Amino acid sequence: MDAVTREDVGAAAERIAGAVRRTPVLTLEPDALGIGVRLHAKLDLLQPTGSFKVRGAMSLLTGADVPEAGVVAASGGNFGLAVAWAARRLGHRAAVFVPESSPPAKLRPLAELGADVHVVPGYYAEALAAADAHVAATGALSAHAYDQPEVVAGQGTATAELLADAPGLDTLLVAVGGGGLIAGAAAWVTDEIRLVGVETDGTPAMHAARAAGRPVDVEVGGLAASSLGARRLGALAWAAQPWVDDALLVSDAEVVQAQRRLWAAARLAAEPGGAVALAALTSGRYRPRPGERVGVLVCGGNVDPATVVDAADPSAPSGG
Amino acid sequence: MDAVTREDVGAAAERIAGAVRRTPVLTLEPDALGIGVRLHAKLDLLQPTGSFKVRGAMSLLTGADVPEAGVVAASGGNFGLAVAWAARRLGHRAAVFVPESSPPAKLRPLAELGADVHVVPGYYAEALAAADAHVAATGALSAHAYDQPEVVAGQGTATAELLADAPGLDTLLVAVGGGGLIAGAAAWVTDEIRLVGVETDGTPAMHAARAAGRPVDVEVGGLAASSLGARRLGALAWAAQPWVDDALLVSDAEVVQAQRRLWAAARLAAEPGGAVALAALTSGRYRPRPGERVGVLVCGGNVDPATVVDAADPSAPSGG
Repeated sequence: MDAVTREDVGAAAERIAGAVRRTPVLTLEPDALGIGVRLHAKLDLLQPTGSFKVRGAMSLLTGADVPEAGVVAASGGNFGLAVAWAARRLGHRAAVFVPESSPPAKLRPLAELGADVHVVPGYYAEALAAADAHVAATGALSAHAYDQPEVVAGQGTATAELLADAPGLDTLLVAVGGGGLIAGAAAWVTDEIRLVGVETDGTPAMHAARAAGRPVDVEVGGLAASSLGARRLGALAWAAQPWVDDALLVSDAEVVQAQRRLWAAARLAAEPGGAVALAALTSGRYRPRPGERVGVLVCGGNVDPATVVDAADPSAPSGG
Repeated sequence: MDAVTREDVGAAAERIAGAVRRTPVLTLEPDALGIGVRLHAKLDLLQPTGSFKVRGAMSLLTGADVPEAGVVAASGGNFGLAVAWAARRLGHRAAVFVPESSPPAKLRPLAELGADVHVVPGYYAEALAAADAHVAATGALSAHAYDQPEVVAGQGTATAELLADAPGLDTLLVAVGGGGLIAGAAAWVTDEIRLVGVETDGTPAMHAARAAGRPVDVEVGGLAASSLGARRLGALAWAAQPWVDDALLVSDAEVVQAQRRLWAAARLAAEPGGAVALAALTSGRYRPRPGERVGVLVCGGNVDPATVVDAADPSAPSGG
């Protein structure tokens, strides 16, 4: 597939303006997280449904002809929620195919958003096959979490907004799963700034692709698997690699440390996938030079917040 | 005491710029919280130590001559944390007098911020008396949570920033305890916009003062007591009443509802006192007219975040 362009992102931004939130940027002082430079954090965890995925979902549903049969997605996670949310706002039907291995707690929010929830025996691959069959049978629009141009263009709007609100960034760190968010970021910034993709040890699809010279299957696991656990980097993210300047890996323990530090410093509860890019900074795996202007996308907050509070941390909340 | 002025707030803003965070404003669509109008929420819960109180503390310590003996506060809560934090940043000593009735979990963060923590037998009144004695003995600077002009001027900077970032507000809702935050807000806005103070049934110091025609003692209790439970409205807040257009009461249950709705809508964990102003909107006790431009200060986030998630809420997070 051809890479998504800056113009595509700009068009998506116009389509979704007012429909999703223009999330704020929080600027943290150098000692807040102990990284030695000021950090410009784009708070996309404050979006409806708790993640940046509403950008791509809304971009798709406003950029494509949506048939009477509505839109279909296979997802037990953030993308399914985002598609259901966007469809409801626009008055379209949504069907979401969820593997039976998903916890029941994940299904209720989808149903409450008005989606037709189909629980499919097996794992994600089976849910995807069932979603594809539904598309073939009904003519519904298929929504893909990261490998669809309108979706990627929508995800790029987070980066466009961040650069507008924090001009002059030198470097942007972005979490990578299937690569929709970084492909959108790359489309917007191209070689204007240093773009760093961050994955966990357990979800290394971009590392594997860069090592092999093409997207290849990886084993996925660990803390971020449910949000970043794509088996293979998307074709659009692969096409965006010329603008991805560096690829870093962080451990699950480093992600937890980042979550806890963010809560201690700013009372924000990021989910593991939402804290992966930040973890590259708090772990020291990315060390900014003095005065470097660094931005990060904090892209999801669908987490049990009890898990982000470190009871042993002296900055932990002490009550009202 | 004379009321604090807009000029005082402007001077405080210059003194504390760069030392405390310029917190962002999140604009929520009308249906996000079900209040029928867009809401401009100033996210001061993202400040260091988790509350707006760092504004007043930093304003005081940069606006007064701080003696070698440092600064003294009586507080087991957010103001003590804020004073300790500001003193450490500026290289001053801080002594914080805490009633022994405070949970031990509240003491460790104070000590970790470098404050000398003095646990005083009895309740807040005894801690305050011990702090006063310490000031008399050492010549240290006394810091008062809400009835000191430099402190109130500092709290007013939250409102000044909100109005700069969300120009044209018609109405601003602010939580009231001893009244430092609303006195600062009143100093900035005077009669430019409609200013609404919100208290809980259990912490009605401003209501009591308005009813009696002067500040009078009240019984305090309930969910917000630890952050809003002043026994008597401050003199500076009383002097600001000409610019307080309305006073509303919310119940503890309405505060909890507001906390849960804010988490469900935007993944923000506000402490009870931090959600009181919002509760006036989500409960319908303040009903904006169509198109009214409404702002709210979300002023504290020192809460066990597990308490803001409603397990029965369909929007509750569903995992990563």
